[in-house]
Amino acid sequence: MALIVQKFGGTSVANLERINNVARRVAATFDQGNDVVVVVSAMAGVTDSLIQLACQAAQEPDKREMDVLLATGEQTTASLLAMVLRAKGYAAVSMLGHQAEVLTDTDFGNARIIEIRAERVKAHLAKRHIVVVAGFQGADPAGDITTLGRGGSDTSAVAIAAALKADVCEIYTDVDGIYTADPNICARARKLKAVSYDEMLNMASLGAKVLQIRSVGFAKKYGIPVHVRSSFSEEEGTMVVSEDSGMEQLVVSAVTHHKDEARITLRGVPDQPGVAAKIFSPVADAGIVVDMIIQNTRASGKTDLTFTVPKADFKKAMAIQKKVAAKIGAKEVLGDTDIAKVSVVGVGMKNHSGVASVMFNALARENINIMLISTSEIRISCIIEEKYTELAVRVLHTAFGLDDE
Amino acid sequence: MALIVQKFGGTSVANLERINNVARRVAATFDQGNDVVVVVSAMAGVTDSLIQLACQAAQEPDKREMDVLLATGEQTTASLLAMVLRAKGYAAVSMLGHQAEVLTDTDFGNARIIEIRAERVKAHLAKRHIVVVAGFQGADPAGDITTLGRGGSDTSAVAIAAALKADVCEIYTDVDGIYTADPNICARARKLKAVSYDEMLNMASLGAKVLQIRSVGFAKKYGIPVHVRSSFSEEEGTMVVSEDSGMEQLVVSAVTHHKDEARITLRGVPDQPGVAAKIFSPVADAGIVVDMIIQNTRASGKTDLTFTVPKADFKKAMAIQKKVAAKIGAKEVLGDTDIAKVSVVGVGMKNHSGVASVMFNALARENINIMLISTSEIRISCIIEEKYTELAVRVLHTAFGLDDE
Repeated sequence: MALIVQKFGGTSVANLERINNVARRVAATFDQGNDVVVVVSAMAGVTDSLIQLACQAAQEPDKREMDVLLATGEQTTASLLAMVLRAKGYAAVSMLGHQAEVLTDTDFGNARIIEIRAERVKAHLAKRHIVVVAGFQGADPAGDITTLGRGGSDTSAVAIAAALKADVCEIYTDVDGIYTADPNICARARKLKAVSYDEMLNMASLGAKVLQIRSVGFAKKYGIPVHVRSSFSEEEGTMVVSEDSGMEQLVVSAVTHHKDEARITLRGVPDQPGVAAKIFSPVADAGIVVDMIIQNTRASGKTDLTFTVPKADFKKAMAIQKKVAAKIGAKEVLGDTDIAKVSVVGVGMKNHSGVASVMFNALARENINIMLISTSEIRISCIIEEKYTELAVRVLHTAFGLDDE
Repeated sequence: MALIVQKFGGTSVANLERINNVARRVAATFDQGNDVVVVVSAMAGVTDSLIQLACQAAQEPDKREMDVLLATGEQTTASLLAMVLRAKGYAAVSMLGHQAEVLTDTDFGNARIIEIRAERVKAHLAKRHIVVVAGFQGADPAGDITTLGRGGSDTSAVAIAAALKADVCEIYTDVDGIYTADPNICARARKLKAVSYDEMLNMASLGAKVLQIRSVGFAKKYGIPVHVRSSFSEEEGTMVVSEDSGMEQLVVSAVTHHKDEARITLRGVPDQPGVAAKIFSPVADAGIVVDMIIQNTRASGKTDLTFTVPKADFKKAMAIQKKVAAKIGAKEVLGDTDIAKVSVVGVGMKNHSGVASVMFNALARENINIMLISTSEIRISCIIEEKYTELAVRVLHTAFGLDDE
């Protein structure tokens, strides 16, 4: 007997047939003697339709009102699932964000959870009710409805699991777990039994499709085991847990790739104190997130500075840098959108040297040139030419012994 | 400068174009210096779609969950209208039932308002905000979402107007006021400038299409003037006010008709104490509402007893009465669904005698037979053969001097 939080995403509740499937799964978990809290997203497509409607109503829809509108999506799913469960004879009850006391800040559209009291949820659980919580939504201290941003239902689920001290938070989605690489480009990729919170946080491209990154931070902070699994099969998925939970520590757990960045290089930058600030302040002011930064000092007292930005912001960033270059006396500004980032991630890296050289050698053997390198404690990322992305993922997957037999 | 509550029904907010029209009207009222609270229904058709969805989800959808689901309809309209107003530069803010502190009992699907505190509404008004309240919904003492039943947005609007001590509650709908008779069958019907709360309460058939009867009771209790008018024109509609408000007191204000009842007669009922209870208790137990009851005692110590029930309940009521007749030894049970009720309504009736004889004579001149008569202080109703309905309405309209020149 455990307290289990189960979260079902939009594709898992896309229509009444699937909501019925979800109800069967919830009921089965309950019938095994567990207490069950279900967190649901809006039915697939509903949130997009509502956003479209709002954009027809107003060019720049007010953010507070947008949240009131969007919250109807999860409200609909929660009530329908509770109805279906009740029709099956289970004492289910729906709870909206404010009813579950999901207290957030006032950043409409992207609110952060401050606290979840969940007193009513606890009271229902004590009566052996199944509680169906509308995900993605909360209320600010004034009682206004807020939403947590895209994928916020994952964060709702993990945060509610933390508030209730649940034994596990199960995230049901349309994939069956976390893979060692994207199976679409690496046929030998295999499903991981477990990954650590930190690995998950470093696996942006592989992980973000499956689990909202913010929810992983929450899970790590409160030590909630997260089980990512498919809502369309009974198979076990991937556990996201703390490093010290006895999971097998591979040196490298996964190879990820990411094609959404572009590279900008300023050549011949005068190597003076304060020059970096002059380059990056206007970029930050424009709301552009810089990922990697590399500086190569040259003998001449000039330096080359290279950084990456999201492809969507490339043009804007280039325009800014051309002005900056003129002002600081840099020689030229070069841009390149045909790049990709490949990374290897693994907690085992902390205790193993030589991971970088294995990576560089594997890429070198295929004559793949490395343009930029960045590292964290458990990740090494290389920027390469975009056309080599799939090849790079495959050779790294093999080089780190991740291939399925 | 006044405090005005404006309520817009489903057809008035049926699409974004109409919501824009509503916004223009609200803005114009605000720009005249008035404080404005808007109460909105779900967009036309939305509530029916949601009910359909629920009925596909569960054979008998749970009532609590049904209210959670239905509440999304008004929530959607409220947020969209607030967005449109904000896009036009007005400081509009939406409020859901629980945010406006519409406290109701726990009768899900048909809840009654206990109290409206509306502290947040007042605070916004004090800042010259336009407040858009989601109609039809409230919250019970536990914080669960409730709905007020069909047409409940009228009740929301009047109750909020009462809570705020508003100067007037304007009900915008797809008709332009209350008429002296149904214009579809009486070409000479004309729009009334004013009717009293009691007249409105007695005009079920004419009035209920325009204004939910429960809201009229609320308006009467708190003395809120209600202005029923069209959302598609600028024309003044009909004021629903107290009798002593200086309104012109016609002897008869309107002629109404109603074709939704059926007649049941028990012949040869033993005229004994307690027999009426034996006849009507099983009808009431079956949830059937009896409207008129007439008893004719005959010399033989037997009596004939006639009453009317909604046509939809006729078969059920007949089956019940056949059993009853056998038990109490009545001679036979007769039923008739080809009947109609025509009524004349007017507060002036209280002080004028002879209204009944004018009515009976007018019908007699056309050889229309009166089957049953019932009266209240300000209404006389006659059951006649259905085929004479239109004729009866027209001759009564003329007889009481209501015809438009």
